[in-house]
Formats: sequence, C-alpha cells, structure tokens
Amino acid sequence: MQKMEAVGKWDVYEVVLDGPQNGNPFTDVDLSAVFTCGTKRVTVTGFYNGNGNYVVRFMPDTTGVWRFRTRSNRRQLSGHTGSLRCISPARGNHGPVRVAQQYHFAYADGTPFIPVGTTAYAWIHQSKALIETTFKTLAKSPFNKIRMCTFPKDYDFNKNEPWEFPYDKKADGTFDFTRFNPVFFNRLESYIRRLGVMGIQADMILLHPYDRWGFSNMGKDADDRYLAYITARLAAFHNVWWSMANEFDFMRAKKREEWDRFCSVVRKNDPYRHLLSIHNGMPQDMYEHDKPWISHVSLQWQEEDPGFVRTLRDKYGKPVVVDECGYEGSINHGWGNLTPQELNHKCWSFVIQGGHAACHGETYYRNDEILWWAKGGPLHGKSPARMAFMRKTLERCAWPMGPSPVVGSWDFKAVGSDRAGDYLLYFGRKQPAFRDVNLPKGKRFRAEVIDTWNMTVTKLPGRYRGWCRILLPARPWIVLRLKTV
Amino acid sequence: MQKMEAVGKWDVYEVVLDGPQNGNPFTDVDLSAVFTCGTKRVTVTGFYNGNGNYVVRFMPDTTGVWRFRTRSNRRQLSGHTGSLRCISPARGNHGPVRVAQQYHFAYADGTPFIPVGTTAYAWIHQSKALIETTFKTLAKSPFNKIRMCTFPKDYDFNKNEPWEFPYDKKADGTFDFTRFNPVFFNRLESYIRRLGVMGIQADMILLHPYDRWGFSNMGKDADDRYLAYITARLAAFHNVWWSMANEFDFMRAKKREEWDRFCSVVRKNDPYRHLLSIHNGMPQDMYEHDKPWISHVSLQWQEEDPGFVRTLRDKYGKPVVVDECGYEGSINHGWGNLTPQELNHKCWSFVIQGGHAACHGETYYRNDEILWWAKGGPLHGKSPARMAFMRKTLERCAWPMGPSPVVGSWDFKAVGSDRAGDYLLYFGRKQPAFRDVNLPKGKRFRAEVIDTWNMTVTKLPGRYRGWCRILLPARPWIVLRLKTV
Repeated sequence: MQKMEAVGKWDVYEVVLDGPQNGNPFTDVDLSAVFTCGTKRVTVTGFYNGNGNYVVRFMPDTTGVWRFRTRSNRRQLSGHTGSLRCISPARGNHGPVRVAQQYHFAYADGTPFIPVGTTAYAWIHQSKALIETTFKTLAKSPFNKIRMCTFPKDYDFNKNEPWEFPYDKKADGTFDFTRFNPVFFNRLESYIRRLGVMGIQADMILLHPYDRWGFSNMGKDADDRYLAYITARLAAFHNVWWSMANEFDFMRAKKREEWDRFCSVVRKNDPYRHLLSIHNGMPQDMYEHDKPWISHVSLQWQEEDPGFVRTLRDKYGKPVVVDECGYEGSINHGWGNLTPQELNHKCWSFVIQGGHAACHGETYYRNDEILWWAKGGPLHGKSPARMAFMRKTLERCAWPMGPSPVVGSWDFKAVGSDRAGDYLLYFGRKQPAFRDVNLPKGKRFRAEVIDTWNMTVTKLPGRYRGWCRILLPARPWIVLRLKTV
Repeated sequence: MQKMEAVGKWDVYEVVLDGPQNGNPFTDVDLSAVFTCGTKRVTVTGFYNGNGNYVVRFMPDTTGVWRFRTRSNRRQLSGHTGSLRCISPARGNHGPVRVAQQYHFAYADGTPFIPVGTTAYAWIHQSKALIETTFKTLAKSPFNKIRMCTFPKDYDFNKNEPWEFPYDKKADGTFDFTRFNPVFFNRLESYIRRLGVMGIQADMILLHPYDRWGFSNMGKDADDRYLAYITARLAAFHNVWWSMANEFDFMRAKKREEWDRFCSVVRKNDPYRHLLSIHNGMPQDMYEHDKPWISHVSLQWQEEDPGFVRTLRDKYGKPVVVDECGYEGSINHGWGNLTPQELNHKCWSFVIQGGHAACHGETYYRNDEILWWAKGGPLHGKSPARMAFMRKTLERCAWPMGPSPVVGSWDFKAVGSDRAGDYLLYFGRKQPAFRDVNLPKGKRFRAEVIDTWNMTVTKLPGRYRGWCRILLPARPWIVLRLKTV
C-alpha cells in the first residue's frame, strides 16, 4: 500500500498526470477530478501545464482522508484515483479570506482579516531582481493584500516589455490565444505561493484596459478560455482573490452584460468560492454589486467626501473595500499626487465610514521610472508607516467595528462595537483642543488619543461617562478611542 | 448768502434740525428730505437722534450743487431747505461697492473690489480697550470687509453683557422696542466711519438668532421699525453692506416669507441700493437668491467640496461670497477648528470656483475667552498672512477672472481672463512634481509658481505654448499662474 500524502489544511495538493501532447491540449482536453471526504464532495478542474503534464490542484478545507477520481475526455487521463490525508494547517495558514459579519472579512479559521492593501499592477512583469526587491519591500510592509494583474500593463512609466507572456506566439509573431504559456503561469504561481507564506492576499486582476498587445480584446472564446484556465490554476491557492477587472468600465471592447458571463466562468472553475469583485473606473455607473456572485465592493473613489463608502455599504449590504483613492506621489495625474497626510487621512476616513482601506499605492516621480504602483520595487513614501500604525490600531480594537450612531456628530464620524463598548472617533483635518461627547449611558470609559500622523498613542487620565469633555491635542488627524472600563 | 458746505463725493452730509421731544419722537415723527442735483432726485429718510435732534444723512454720488428740502408730519421739521457742493471724493473713498461684471464687485468709481473678509460678530459690543485692539488688528490685516452684528450676541465664549444696548429700557427693566438708544447708534456709526477710512466694508448683520435679550423675537412692528431706523442711520455711509441675517433659517421666530418684507423695508429706506444679502445656516434650503433685491449670495458652506460655489454662481447669476466655511481655531465645534492650511485651502478653492473668499474667522481656544470671531481683539493664527498673500496675488492678476474652460481638468480647476490671457490653476492638496497643460492656441505664456502656504512666487524660466509640461514643486497648495507674453 502506497503511503498516503499528508497535506496541510488549505494547502495545495496536486495530482500530476502524463497525457497527450498532440493537437492542442489546451483546447482539446478536458480534465477534472472529484475529491471526497465523508459527505464532502468537491469537483476540481484540471489544466495542461505543458510538456505532456496535466495537473489537478486541490485545496482541502477539512482534515481527514480525501479520495479522488479523475475524469477526462481522454482515456489516458481518466479514472485515476488516489487519496491524501488533510492534516492541521501549516503555521500561518488561516485559510481563504471570507466575508464575515456581513461587512467584514475573516479567514476560514475565524481569524479576523482587516484589509490593509497596496497596488502594484505589473510587479510580476519586471526583472527578477526588481521582483526580489518587491518581495523585500512587502516583507517589511504592513500590507496584507496586493492588487496585481495577470496581463502586462501598458501605461505611463510602464512601457517596458514583460519577461514573458501568458500566451505562446504564432509563427507570425502574434499571440496564439489558444495556447497558454505554462512558464509564465508557473512563475506567477511561485509568486502567489510566496505571498501566501507572507500572509499577503493576491488580489488578482484578471482583465484590464491598459494594453498594447491585444489581451484586453481577445474575443469571447479566448476570454472565457483564459478565465477558466487561470481559475483552474490559481483557485487552490488559499490567498487568491478574484478581481474581475481593474476599471471594468474603461474596457471598451467588453459589453456590459459580458461581465456576468465572466463571473460565471470563474465561479464554475472555483469550487472554493474565493472573494470576487469588479473594480470600477468611474463611480457613477458601477457594476450591479447586488448580484450574488459579488462578494464585496472593490471601490475606486477619488473624491474628497468619504461618505460614498457608507452609501454603498448600506445599498449593497456587503463589505466596501476602497482599493484606490489616489496614490501617494507626485506625478502629473490627479490620482497620483496625494501627500502622505492625505492618503493617511483618506484611509482613516474610509474606515470610519465603515469601509476598508486597502488603497495604498505610490507614484513619486522618479528618473528611473520605477514607480511602485506599476512596477513594485522599493517604497519611498511616508504613508506605509501610517498604514502599519492603522492596521496595528484596528487589530487591537474590538472586531468588527461598524458605523456607530452612539457617538459621532455632523462634523465627525465614529465606528464602534456596542457589544464591546469600544469606539473610534476620527476628527479628520480638524484640530479641536477639546471635544464634548455624549457617551452611552451607564458605562465608564477610558480614553486614548491616537495621533494617526505622528503615530503616537496617549492614554488620557481619568474615566469618562455621559456628556463629557475630552481634551485633545489641537492637531489634525486625531483618532479618539473610547473603551469601556 | 450763507457759504455753501463742500462735501466729498460719497461722503456723509448731515442736515441737523431741532424738533419735538414730547411723545415718542421715534414713532410719532416722520422726517425725510429730497435732494436734487440737475435731474437727479434722491429721497432720504431722516431719524431722531435724541435730545430733540433730528438728522437727515445724505451721501451725494454726483459732483456739483445739491439742494434739499425737508418733509415732515411736524411743521417744525418741514420745509427746511439748503444746499451743498459735492466735490471730488476724499482720497481713498471710492464710493460704495457694487456688483460688477455680473459675478464680481467694484467700487462706484470703477475700482475693482475683491472681497477678503473676516467675521467678528460682536466686536462692537466689547470694552473700549478691546475695540481699540480690534481696530489695530484690522489696520494690520488684509481684510477689506468685516461681518458684524448690530445686536449683541449670546453664545459660547460670548456671554458678557454689551456696554450699551440699541434700545432704552422701560421702568420694569425690559427693553422698550419703541425707543432706540442714540448713544449706541452714534458709537456704532463712529466705528463704521473709522472702518470706512481704513477701506473696510461693514457687512452689517441686521438680525441674528444668538440672543438672550429678545432682539431676535421683537414682533413684526418692532422688526420693521428697527430695520427702517438703522437703514436711515447707516445708508449714507459708503462702506455699509446689508446682511439681513446671520443664519436666517435658524431664526425660528421669523416666518420665511417675512424676509421679503424685511428686505423691502431696508430697500425703501436705502436710496443708494447698498449690497444686500441673506446668509444661510444650512445650505439645503437657502433664501431664494433669484429675487431682485438680493445683490449676491452670502454663503455658509462647511462641506469639503467647493463645487457648490460654482453651482450657486450658475444658478443665480450673481456673485457668490463665501462668508463662512469654518474658522481657523481649536474649539469644540466642527465649524471652529480648522487648521490654517485648511482655511487657506478653502479660500483658494472658492476663488478657483469663481467665488469670493471672505471667510476668515478665528476661534482658537483661550482661557481669556477672547476669540476673534466673537469679540475681535488680537489675532493669533496663520491664515491672515495667507489671505493677505491671496489678496495681493488676485489684485495683481487680470480682473475679473472667471471659471475657465480653457485650462483645467477633472482634478484641478482654473479661473482666468481669456481677454487678458491670464490664468490661475490651483492644485489644492495635491503635490504634482509636474503637470501637462493644454494652453490656448496661438499664444505664448509665462509661468509663475505661487506657493499659497509658504507665500512665495517663483517665475519659471522659458515660455510655454500648446500642450506643454510645467515643472512644479511637489508640494501642496500650489497655484500656477499662466500669463500671455
């Protein structure tokens, strides 16, 4: 009897099979496997990985013995069986992130996940040296999510060719959208694995408009084939999120109704139901986020007023993640020249509206044209330290916190947990030297002044109750924490 | 033949007559005079000034000989005649400010007036020493307009009794709303005269809700009598503006339709048609500014987005003066704890939307409770220097400048004069290191970088035309001036 392979819960188990190389294995061959464990039954799509290799990737979510059997339209690949023992998860693997408490996120094991994310669209398309720099930067960063594109990007400060493409080329030099390039995907997957070990969610942007190669306009069949293929490859990684598009509304070649089909292709090939979103360009005509396959709102919001976060939260009853609100930097574009003070302010504003701030990005103008938002590399700005402070602050507070009617006024907002008696009040750009607040009756509170720019926490002496006056430092960007004794 | 008195154009000429002291001269006696000069004919309302003195005040607006004849329901005051010679205006007297170029202001002599104003509601109600301090502060300040109340104010940091009231008291200690107190008004007028000499417009707030004495709820007859009386007294001062109310919508005792009548009383007794506005509390339900007696919008706007200024400008086709947008300070109230950076930013934002920034006020918390916005006194903040810089900047640019579609983009706005080829672009809180702009065809431009916070002007070398890139300092609060060569 063959020794049964042990696989950590939410880790990747691979069935690798030899199969036909003739014809076009990417289009001719169907492969899947059914994994069972007790009454659990998961159907997993396989994929061709080149050189006659076929792979079925599986992420077990239940400890115990899993058995599988393959299916294929090719006899050589059909009817293979085997089993694995799913053991306790590896240290640090909390499973995929799910929506929790309606407006929030938690890992599958219940650990709260507070998204503090960044964007580096084309970092995987850069040189190996630069990619290693990006990993080093991420390792020191507060970011637990990164927005990144499968396809290379053509845009200002990002005109270099990628090291490899997702497709093979035909004899005439054009891309063959029926033949994927496994070299590209294997390397992409190695990066996703490393991100996973680092505790970073790969928010995979599957489609985007910034393109000079034709990937944004491949046609219906190629679009669907691509989405099925990448989902089959990546769905078994616990740290993958599906971002159907960056700025779907700017993709002129796609009809609006096509996005429903795109989503369904991904859902069909993702038995784990990873988080799935569609990121907007303009806020006026967003995708219908009430559709059930949309897990959360992935929002671009460049305006001053953070109130739209609350509006969308209430409208859709789903988490609102601000993934883009302008980047810390100094370039020409209005979305790329925020001060770090402003980006920090926006992050807190979104959180205090009941949203999530995964909106870091950096666009300082540089002669070497290595701008983080496009290529990764080093970071130069002052907002990452503030977002680290924000993450630390939120992680030591009650979870989850939502918009609180208990405290708050026309000029400032608050989030809190009434259950835990824990509140955060944010005074934004204002600089009060004191503030009168009306605390929930019958409880006594401790107060902490949290300076989000200077990254200090000052415990105030005494206890507070009812209508009371709290002395503040007369500086902007102050959060006041009130916690029941 | 009596020597004819010489009066400077737009100066005050007074006819002083002895009249009856019996009964109640304030309510019993009507007095007016008709002034004529060639075909010009101005009817002026007189008033009782106590001690048997009756006064008709007149502001001639045309040089030459003016003749007058009084009218009264008392024989003693009727039929008095006389004449004056109106000569060239005194140095510095440019006449009353009028609406000019639809959205702007100019003095009667054509000199542009760019409002850069402040608010000190109850400064005239403080001690003489403090009032003198206020004058000293104003003399050093950039402010050419001050919002100030006739009636004393009852509010946080302003609980002291005034030195004098506009009304006499009855034997029972309550105010007699049929008997004005000339001592109060004469002193008020001495302050308005001094402001006039300093080139400061007295934006007289005639009614306001912050009251513990009953002046906000005197009833219809007393309201009308007060408005007629103060108009008769003050209309001849060239530097008076009528602000019918501070926060008219917060005056619960007044019906909304009463404001039309209040305006008509003022207009009837003001032959010079001074500027007249009604300041809002909330922006949602403002007075109908399309009514012809409203000269301009006196706006309170506490929100972040300055776009409402442009909206109102377009809606009413009148100048929009932001008179209140939050004050530089540190008090509890959300409208009283702006940083100086924010107030400066707001001022420029309003100007760049085609409005006017008369919105200075200071509310730093102080143990002595002398806060400028209420009591005047000294100033402690950093915004007045910036508003001085703004005024100087605007005064050296082409006049008038309006919203410019020629330059500007989604992320920044511009004002300019196409005729003069002079444009101001404001990048707000953004910090671009460079900016591509599309300049009007066929012209060459010089560029100046104006740092509104550091108050520096840096001329850029070279000339610019068409689509061009302009290097900027990668700091926030930058205005770029582009002027045709």
